[in-house]
Amino acid sequence: MNMPKRPSGSLSEHTIELSRDPISPNSTKVYLEGEIHPDIRVPFREIKLAPTTLQNPPAGEPAEEQNEPVLVYDTSGPYTDPKVEIDVHKGLTPIRREWILARGDVEAYTGRSERPEDNGYKNAEQMKEKDIERFNRSGRPVYRAKPGCNVSQLHYAKQGTITPEMEYIAIRENQRRLTLMENTERENRLKGNAFGATLPEQITPEFVRDEVARGRAIIPANINHPETEPMIIGRNFLVKINANIGNSAITSSIEEEVEKMVWATRWGSDTVMDLSTGKNIHETREWIIRNAAVPIGTVPIYQALEKVNGKPEELTWEIYRDTLIEQAEQGVDYFTIHAGVLLRYVPLTAKRMTGIVSRGGAIMAKWCLAHHQENFLYTHFEETCEIMKAYDISFSLGDGLRPGSQADANDAAQFGELETLGELTKIALKHDVQTMVEGPGHVPMHLIKENMEKQLQECDEAPFYTLGPLTTDIAPGYDHITSGIGAAMIGWYGCAMLCYVTPKEHLGLPDRDDVKVGVITYKISAHAADLAKGHPGARVRDDALSKARFEFRWEDQFNLSLDPETALKYHDTTLPAEGHKVAHFCSMCGPQFCSMKITQDVRDYAAKLGIDEQQALDKGMAEMSQTFKDKGSEIYQKV
Amino acid sequence: MNMPKRPSGSLSEHTIELSRDPISPNSTKVYLEGEIHPDIRVPFREIKLAPTTLQNPPAGEPAEEQNEPVLVYDTSGPYTDPKVEIDVHKGLTPIRREWILARGDVEAYTGRSERPEDNGYKNAEQMKEKDIERFNRSGRPVYRAKPGCNVSQLHYAKQGTITPEMEYIAIRENQRRLTLMENTERENRLKGNAFGATLPEQITPEFVRDEVARGRAIIPANINHPETEPMIIGRNFLVKINANIGNSAITSSIEEEVEKMVWATRWGSDTVMDLSTGKNIHETREWIIRNAAVPIGTVPIYQALEKVNGKPEELTWEIYRDTLIEQAEQGVDYFTIHAGVLLRYVPLTAKRMTGIVSRGGAIMAKWCLAHHQENFLYTHFEETCEIMKAYDISFSLGDGLRPGSQADANDAAQFGELETLGELTKIALKHDVQTMVEGPGHVPMHLIKENMEKQLQECDEAPFYTLGPLTTDIAPGYDHITSGIGAAMIGWYGCAMLCYVTPKEHLGLPDRDDVKVGVITYKISAHAADLAKGHPGARVRDDALSKARFEFRWEDQFNLSLDPETALKYHDTTLPAEGHKVAHFCSMCGPQFCSMKITQDVRDYAAKLGIDEQQALDKGMAEMSQTFKDKGSEIYQKV
Repeated sequence: MNMPKRPSGSLSEHTIELSRDPISPNSTKVYLEGEIHPDIRVPFREIKLAPTTLQNPPAGEPAEEQNEPVLVYDTSGPYTDPKVEIDVHKGLTPIRREWILARGDVEAYTGRSERPEDNGYKNAEQMKEKDIERFNRSGRPVYRAKPGCNVSQLHYAKQGTITPEMEYIAIRENQRRLTLMENTERENRLKGNAFGATLPEQITPEFVRDEVARGRAIIPANINHPETEPMIIGRNFLVKINANIGNSAITSSIEEEVEKMVWATRWGSDTVMDLSTGKNIHETREWIIRNAAVPIGTVPIYQALEKVNGKPEELTWEIYRDTLIEQAEQGVDYFTIHAGVLLRYVPLTAKRMTGIVSRGGAIMAKWCLAHHQENFLYTHFEETCEIMKAYDISFSLGDGLRPGSQADANDAAQFGELETLGELTKIALKHDVQTMVEGPGHVPMHLIKENMEKQLQECDEAPFYTLGPLTTDIAPGYDHITSGIGAAMIGWYGCAMLCYVTPKEHLGLPDRDDVKVGVITYKISAHAADLAKGHPGARVRDDALSKARFEFRWEDQFNLSLDPETALKYHDTTLPAEGHKVAHFCSMCGPQFCSMKITQDVRDYAAKLGIDEQQALDKGMAEMSQTFKDKGSEIYQKV
Repeated sequence: MNMPKRPSGSLSEHTIELSRDPISPNSTKVYLEGEIHPDIRVPFREIKLAPTTLQNPPAGEPAEEQNEPVLVYDTSGPYTDPKVEIDVHKGLTPIRREWILARGDVEAYTGRSERPEDNGYKNAEQMKEKDIERFNRSGRPVYRAKPGCNVSQLHYAKQGTITPEMEYIAIRENQRRLTLMENTERENRLKGNAFGATLPEQITPEFVRDEVARGRAIIPANINHPETEPMIIGRNFLVKINANIGNSAITSSIEEEVEKMVWATRWGSDTVMDLSTGKNIHETREWIIRNAAVPIGTVPIYQALEKVNGKPEELTWEIYRDTLIEQAEQGVDYFTIHAGVLLRYVPLTAKRMTGIVSRGGAIMAKWCLAHHQENFLYTHFEETCEIMKAYDISFSLGDGLRPGSQADANDAAQFGELETLGELTKIALKHDVQTMVEGPGHVPMHLIKENMEKQLQECDEAPFYTLGPLTTDIAPGYDHITSGIGAAMIGWYGCAMLCYVTPKEHLGLPDRDDVKVGVITYKISAHAADLAKGHPGARVRDDALSKARFEFRWEDQFNLSLDPETALKYHDTTLPAEGHKVAHFCSMCGPQFCSMKITQDVRDYAAKLGIDEQQALDKGMAEMSQTFKDKGSEIYQKV
C-alpha cells in the first residue's frame, strides 16, 4: 500500500491508492438483474475454471470436460469492477437513492450544522488550523422521514411491501446456487444440522420480506447511506461478518481509514464498524460512509464522550441525542447502544475476574455510578426509537457487560443484561425499528450454545451478533484463532453475524495485515457455520476447490480460495525448481507419493471400460495388476 | 536460527545452534519428585508473577498482594534447562534406562546392521560418497524383550504394576493443580461437559495404571528410546498434540531435522512424527530419536516404499517387517500402520470428490489393486503385534481412507475402515499391545461428533488421534485455522491427541514459522477442549492471565501466554512512545476508555470500606458520585 501523507492544503493533488486489483486472476465482476425491480443489478464475483483433462477419454469423445464457473458472494463493492471509475472525493454512486425517493415518504431538509466539537475541537479556529479536508456533500441532500412516517425496511415488510432492497438481497443470497448445485452430492449425511433455522432451497423476495417482518432478520440501510449494496443479517441467511476499523488518539489519518474499509470489504467483511475516537471523528466517518458499499455501524457514545472531554459523568441525554442525529444524517446504518447496562447490574460485576471490559459498558457503568441514576440510554429508549425509524437505522443492542475472561462467562451480570436486551428488542419491534443484539466475548466451548439459546428465547429470534467468542484466554497474539473457534460454533448454532477479532486483540491496534487475517479467519468461521447448518449451496465452492485439488488444477485452487494471493505465495516458496510448478504431484508428498493421482487412475480405468465404476473396479482388478506393472514409474512424470 | 551447512567431513566442528533460550522471562525449569519411585524428576515450567498493587489498601495493610507462580506442563525437554549440557552428538540422558533394566525382562542384543537401502542408497560406496555422519550409538545397546516376555506398559498395567513411567505421568498431569485451584472460582457453570470422560480432581499413579490397563490410554515408550519424558494419551487426561516433521526429496538436512523437533516441542508439541522420505531416512531418524525427550512416531510404509524405489506393487511383508525391526531397534515409539485399507473398501472411494488422500492409504490401495490381494498389513497383523510387544511400540492404526474434502466426510469408505480398525484394536489389546486409532481429515462441524462417537464405540474407547478435522475446504493458506476449529471440537468430544496442520497444508512444506504457528494453534485447540471438558485445573492459567490483564501487569500477561515473544512484539509495535509502554490504559481503547481501570476503581472502593463488596456498592453509590467528580481526569495518568 502506497499511502502518501498529505503535506498541507487540499488532498486532491494526492491520489489515494485504493485496492482495486482483481481478487484473483480469472475473476470477473458480474451482475444479476431483478425481476420485480428490473433496475436492480446485484454484483457477484465469477471465478472461471480450467477444464478437467481426461487422461483416457472414451473413443471419439473430447479429452476435456468443462467446469462451470463459480459465483461467489461479493462484498468488495464497485472497487473490484474495472469498469467503474472511483473518485473518493465524489463518493460512490448512490444506487438506492431512486428507490428511497420513489417510496414518497422522505423529505430533504437542512441538516444539523457540523460543529467543531464533532471533530474534537474547541472552536472553529482550532479546526481550521488543523486543515481538515471536508467531504463536499453538495448534491447529496440530507433526508428524513416525513412527519408521521416510518421509513424502516421492517415497517415496509410488515405492510407487505417487497422493496428493491429485499429483491436485491434474495438474488444476492441465492448466488445462482440451484443451478450450481445440480452436480452436488446431496446425501443425507451432508444435509447439516441447522438447530431450528429455516433454510429454504431458494430464497425468494417474499421470504426476505417475511423474515424482516418477523424481526428475525435486519437490512441495515439508512436512507442517508444510499451508496450501500443491500445485505441482510439473520440466522436463516448466510452468516455474515463485521470488521472494526477506527483511528485512535495515537495513530491513523482519514485517508488510511477509507482504505481500511475498502481493504476489509475486499476480503469479505459484510459490514464495517467505525470505532474512531479522538480528533476528526465526524470527517473520518463522512469519508468512509460516502465511499462504503457496505453498511456502516458505530457506537455513538464514543463520540458523545469526546464531546465531554472524556468524562462519562458529564454525558447527558441531550448531548447523546444530538450525536445520534449528527450520525443519522451522515448515514450510519446501525448504532450500538448499551441500553442494557442497568444500575442494578453493575454491582454484579464487582467479583468478576475481569470486571467490565466493554468500552461502552464501562462508560455507562461509570455514568450510572457517578449519578446513582438509571442508564439514560435505557430511560430514553423510546425516544431513540423515534430517531431510528426516521432514518431507518438499526439497533445493535450492545452487551456492555459481556465477559472478558473464561471465568466470567454466562454469569449473572451477562445474563441479566441479556434479559434487558430482550425487553428492549420487543419495544424496538413495537416501533418497527430493526434490531439485532450483541453477544460475548470470552466463553469456553461448553457454554457457547447456552448463549445462543438464551438469546433466541429472550430476544424472540432477533439476529444475534457476537464478538468471537474467545474459547481460551491464554493466547494473546492469536486471538483471531481462539475466537474463530467460538465464532464458527456460535454461527453454526444460529448467530447471524460474527464480529471479527484480529491477532492484535488485547495488545494493540491492528495494521493492514492484521485486518486481512482477521477477516479471512472470520470468513472461515462463517463459512464453516454455513456448511454445518446445511445452508443450501454453501458447499458449491468447497466442492469446486476440492475437485480442482484432486485434478491438480493449482490455479483454480488458488482462485477459489478465500485468499488467492497467500495460497499462491505459499505454493511458490516451497518448490524450488520452476519446472515443478505444474508437475502432477503434491509438494507435501513428493513425486513418489501422489495419492490423488493414484485414485484418478482408478477412476479413469473405470471410465475407459465404459461401465459402472463399481463393477469396473470389482471386475477389473486382476487386469489392473498387469496394467499397473506395465505402467511402472510412468505414472509420476515430471513436467 | 543460524544453521551452518556442513561443508564436508565431520559435523563436530560445526555446532548446531539449538533453541535453548528460556521460553519467557520469569520462567524457570523446576522438577517435582516421585513418592513411589523417588528417583523420578518431573519437569515443569514455573512462571513467576509480579504482585498485585493495591491502590487503596486498608490502613496498616501491605500495598501489595503476592500472586502464586503458575506451573505449566512442559514438553520442551532438557533444552530449556540451562543447567543441562546438551551435545547432539551424545544425545540426551537416557532417564528411563534404569527403570527398563530394573524390570528384568529385556535383553541386549546385536541389532540388525544398518544397510545402504535404509538410507536410500544402492550400495555402501554410494552412501560413503555422500559422507553421511552417523550417530555414534556405542554405550546405548539395543534391547528387546526376553523370549516369552511382553515389555509393554499395557502388559505391566494389566498385571497391576505401577511403573515409574506411570507415576511420572500422574505427577505431570496434575501440575500441582489442587494447590493452584484453591483460589479458582468453581461455580457450576464452569464445570464443563466431558461427554462421558472421567476427569478426577487428582490423577493418581493408580488411575494412570488403570486407564492404561483398560486400553483407554497409551504411554508411547519404546524400550530403545529411554531418553523420553513419559507422557500419556487418553481422553481422561490433558488433550495432547502432535507435530509432523520430515525431510523431503527436495529440501532439508539432518541438522535441520533435529532442530525442527526441538523447535516443535519448545512450543508445546507432545509427540513428533518423523515423516521423512528420500535419502538418509535412517540416519535422520537416529539423530532425532537420540535427541528427543518426546515420543517419536513414524509411518514405516514410507521407508519400506523407498526400499522398493517407490513402487508400491513391489512391497512385500518381508521388506516391511524388516523395516519395522529396523525402526524398533532405533526406538520409534509408535507406528502408523494402515492395516484397515481393505481391498473391498477401495472401490468405495471411486465416486469420492477427492478419492484417497492419505499417502499410506494410497500406497496400500495401490498394492491391493496391483496384486488383487488383501492388504498384507491386515493379513500379518498378529505377527506385527509380536514385534510391537517385544519393544513396547504403540499402534497408531492409520486411517488410510480418511476424507480429503467436505463432500467425502463420514462416507462408507471412511466408516468401513473405522470398523476394521475397531476389530484390529481388539486384536492388539488381546496381545497387550498399546493402541490408538487415527481419524480424519476434512469434516464439516455437524459431522464431527459422529466421528468421535463411532470411534469410541467401535474401538472400545481406545484413544482417538485425529488430523484436524478441517471444517471447510476453501481456505488453503489458512488450514491451521480451518482445522484448529475442528480440532478444538473433537478434543472437547473426547479426542485424545490432535495432529497439527500448518498454514502450508496442501501447498508446500512448512518452514520454521509455519511449524510454530501450527503448534500454537493446536495448543489453543487442545486447551480450549480441556476447558470445555472441565478438566480440573485447566483454567488456572486462563485465570492467572486474565487477572494479570485486568491489573495491567503486561509482563505477566506475556509470560503466561502460549507465545510470549509474539505477544510482546505485538504490544510493542503499537504504541509509538516509549513512555506509553507501562501506561495504565489498553492501547485498543486509548487513554479515555480504560474500562478495566474503571472496574478496578469500583473494587478498590469496596475494599477500602472494608465491608462486603456487594453491600459496599449498593450503599456507596451516592457517595461515589462525589468521589468520581473529585477525581476528575486523574484516573488516567500517563506514566
